[in-house]
Amino acid sequence: MSEISASFSQRMRQLRPSTIREILKVAAQPEIISFAGGLPAPELFPIEAVQAASDYVLSTIGRAALQYGASEGFMPLREWIAAEVARCGIEAAPADVLVTNGSQQMLDLVGKLLLNPGDVVLTENPTYLAAIQAFQTFEAKFTPIPTDKHGLIPEALPKLIIKHRPKFLYTIPNFQNPTSITLVAERRAQLAKIAAKHYLIVVEDDPYGKLRYQGADVPPVKHWDEANCVIYVSTFSKTIAPGLRLGWAIATQEIFSQLLILKQASDLHTSSFDQRVAWAFLTHNNHNVHLERIRHTYSSRFDVMDAALKAEMPAGFSWSRPEGGMFLWVTGPTGFDGVELLQRAIAHKVAFVPGRDFFPMGAGNNFLRLNYSNSTPERIREGVHRIAELCHDETLVTPAHSGAPEAAPFVQR
Amino acid sequence: MSEISASFSQRMRQLRPSTIREILKVAAQPEIISFAGGLPAPELFPIEAVQAASDYVLSTIGRAALQYGASEGFMPLREWIAAEVARCGIEAAPADVLVTNGSQQMLDLVGKLLLNPGDVVLTENPTYLAAIQAFQTFEAKFTPIPTDKHGLIPEALPKLIIKHRPKFLYTIPNFQNPTSITLVAERRAQLAKIAAKHYLIVVEDDPYGKLRYQGADVPPVKHWDEANCVIYVSTFSKTIAPGLRLGWAIATQEIFSQLLILKQASDLHTSSFDQRVAWAFLTHNNHNVHLERIRHTYSSRFDVMDAALKAEMPAGFSWSRPEGGMFLWVTGPTGFDGVELLQRAIAHKVAFVPGRDFFPMGAGNNFLRLNYSNSTPERIREGVHRIAELCHDETLVTPAHSGAPEAAPFVQR
Repeated sequence: MSEISASFSQRMRQLRPSTIREILKVAAQPEIISFAGGLPAPELFPIEAVQAASDYVLSTIGRAALQYGASEGFMPLREWIAAEVARCGIEAAPADVLVTNGSQQMLDLVGKLLLNPGDVVLTENPTYLAAIQAFQTFEAKFTPIPTDKHGLIPEALPKLIIKHRPKFLYTIPNFQNPTSITLVAERRAQLAKIAAKHYLIVVEDDPYGKLRYQGADVPPVKHWDEANCVIYVSTFSKTIAPGLRLGWAIATQEIFSQLLILKQASDLHTSSFDQRVAWAFLTHNNHNVHLERIRHTYSSRFDVMDAALKAEMPAGFSWSRPEGGMFLWVTGPTGFDGVELLQRAIAHKVAFVPGRDFFPMGAGNNFLRLNYSNSTPERIREGVHRIAELCHDETLVTPAHSGAPEAAPFVQR
Repeated sequence: MSEISASFSQRMRQLRPSTIREILKVAAQPEIISFAGGLPAPELFPIEAVQAASDYVLSTIGRAALQYGASEGFMPLREWIAAEVARCGIEAAPADVLVTNGSQQMLDLVGKLLLNPGDVVLTENPTYLAAIQAFQTFEAKFTPIPTDKHGLIPEALPKLIIKHRPKFLYTIPNFQNPTSITLVAERRAQLAKIAAKHYLIVVEDDPYGKLRYQGADVPPVKHWDEANCVIYVSTFSKTIAPGLRLGWAIATQEIFSQLLILKQASDLHTSSFDQRVAWAFLTHNNHNVHLERIRHTYSSRFDVMDAALKAEMPAGFSWSRPEGGMFLWVTGPTGFDGVELLQRAIAHKVAFVPGRDFFPMGAGNNFLRLNYSNSTPERIREGVHRIAELCHDETLVTPAHSGAPEAAPFVQR
C-alpha cells in the first residue's frame, strides 16, 4: 500500500472490483456484438424532437436554462412527473418529486441517508449490480429475500426483518434486472402492508415499468403505501434518453427533505438545461406514441433472441420470458462457468454480463444476462449463434464445482 | 423522532441546517436585490453560441450525445481540459481528467474516497460553505489553517499535520470564497513541498481562476506537485454556464482510478449531451473573448460596489479588494450581528449571506459576503444603499457579545 492509498477511507476497502466496467469498455468497440450493457436502442432516440426541444428551451426560456437552479429540480418537470405517476396509481404532489442525475444518483442518496457501516439491506438475489455498488459504498451488508416466479415472497419478510433489522428493502418490481421477473399485484399490496407494520423503508426502483409489451400493467408498490414507507424511484433513461441523466424519486416529506439536503451537498442540482429539454420534449410531443414504438421494437427483438436461443442452445440451458424490459436471464447447467464463457465469447466478438456480478453474496456463475434492446435482429441472431456454439463445449462445465447460488432465483423457459 | 427518521444514518445527525438554502429561496424572488448567491451574470451567458453548439451536437454527433457514456467523461472534452490546464502550468494527460456533475460533485467524491467518521480536514477559516456540507456528510471534523492577507501560512502546517493527522487539506487559492484572498506563489510552492513531505493530499478548488481582472495569474498549487499529492478541481460553471453542471478534477492515476469507481457508483456518468455541448462551444468559439467580457463586467461591478460601500457604509466596517472572482467580504465591528442584519435586509428587499455559515467551527457573525457578479450597477448601488442604512442602527452591535471568530481572517479595506 502506498502512502497515498493509506489515506483512503474504510469504505473503499469494501468495494469489490466490477468486472462489468471492463466488459462494457470492450463491448463498446463497434466490431463486438454486445448483449452486455443495459443500453436502449439508439435508433429510437427522438433526436429531432430533442433538437426542437433544446431550440425551444434556449430561445424561449433562455438564460434560466443555463443558470443555477433549485436542488429539488425544475418545477414544471416535477409537475409533469406528479401527473404522470398519478396515472399509475401514485398520489403525489409536485413537491414530493426530487429530480436527480439519473436514478443511479437516487440510490446513492438513499444509501447516504440510511446506511451506517454494517447495516443490512434486503434485496432480491440476484439484483441490479449498480445498486449493489451504490450501497456497498456505504458499507452495507446484503440479505437475500426468497423469491419465486412471481417475485419476492412477502411471507418470508417478517422473520427476516426481526432477525436482520434491515435499514431498507430494495426491489425492482417490473421486469427485474437481471431476472426479468415481475412482482405480482397481491404481493405488492402485501409488501406495503408488512413494510407499514414494521416501519421498513422500501426502495422501489422502477426504470422499466413503461417498457411492458405483454400482459397488463401492475400498480407500483407505492400505490398501496398508506404508511409512506416507500421511496418510488424512476428515470427518463429508458423512455427518452439515458445521456440526459434524468431520474427522480417520490417520497414523503420527512424523507424528501433529507434527500434534498444530501442532493444539494452532492452536486447542488441536476442540469438546468437537460431538465428543461426533457420537459419541453414531454409537453410538445405525444410521449405515448414514442413509448409504443419502443415497446414494439423491444418485443420483436425479444422474439428474435428467444427464437435464436431455442434454435441453437444446447440442452441444459433455460431462459426467462419477460413481459417487458430489456433483458433475458439465462440459466446454465450446475457447474457452468459463465465468466470463462465470457472470456471465450469476447475472443469471438460477442459480449454479455456473467450472472455472478448480480449476486451480492457471491455464487451465480452459471447464469448469463443477455440484453436484446441494443442490437438489431441480424446482430442478435449472429451473436446468439456465436454464444451457443461456445456453450456446446463441455469444458465450460465443472461437475465437481458447485456453481449454484445459495438462493437460486426461479427461472422459466 | 418518528419511526421513519429512526432509520436515518449517523451522518444525517452531523448535518447542520443550512441558512443559505432558505436565503437563496427568498433571494430568488425578482423584487429582491440579491448579493447572496454565487451566481454568474446571466446576461453574459453565451446563449446563441450554446444553441449553435447544441444544434451541432445533435445534428452531427447525433445519437451518442443521448446514449450512456463513459464514467470518465467525454474524451474530446477531457482532451480540451488537459490542453487548457497545460497552459496554466499543470502537466496532465486526458486520462488524468475526470468529468463530474459540477465541481461540487468532486468534493462529494473526495469526501467519499478519503473520509472516515471523525477524520480531520484542514481548511481556511472561513471557507466555502458547500464544501463544509459535502465533507460533513462523511462526518469530517475541521481544523483551521492560520491565514493572513496572502492566504494560508505554510509554516503553520507541519505542526497541524503532526497534531491532527488530517486526511486532506482543502484550499481555494484564487479569490477564495468567501474572503476573496489569493494565495501567493511562494506559498503555493511551499504548500506542495510540505504536502509531499507528509504525504498529505491537497484538494485545490479553483472555480474562479479564470475570473482575474487585476494583477498577474499565479500558477496553481498543482504546478509544483511533484509528489502527485494534489487533486486539482475546477468547473465550467463560471466560464460557460452553471446550469450545464460540468466540473472536473485532475488527479494522479492512483487517486483517479478510485474516484472513477465512486463516480460510477454515484451516478454512472455526467450528461452526455451537456459534455458535448460544452465541448462544441469551446472548440467553435474564441473562449478568451468570452472570458475577457466576463472579467471586464465583474471588474466594473466590483468598482461600483466598492464605491457605493465607501460612500454609504458607517465607520467600523471594512471590506476586501479582490483581484478577481465574484465576492466582497465585509468585516463589521466586533459584536455586530450579521444574521439579524439579514433579517432586516430581507424586509427591505435586499439579501446577502451572513459570514457565520462559512466558519465550520462556528463564530464569524460580524462578517457579510456580498456577491457583485449577479446584479446590474443600478441594483448594486440601490442594494448597498439599503444595507448601509440598516448598518447605521447601533442595536445591531452587542458590545457584551464576542462575535469575533477564533481565527479571524485578514481583511483589507
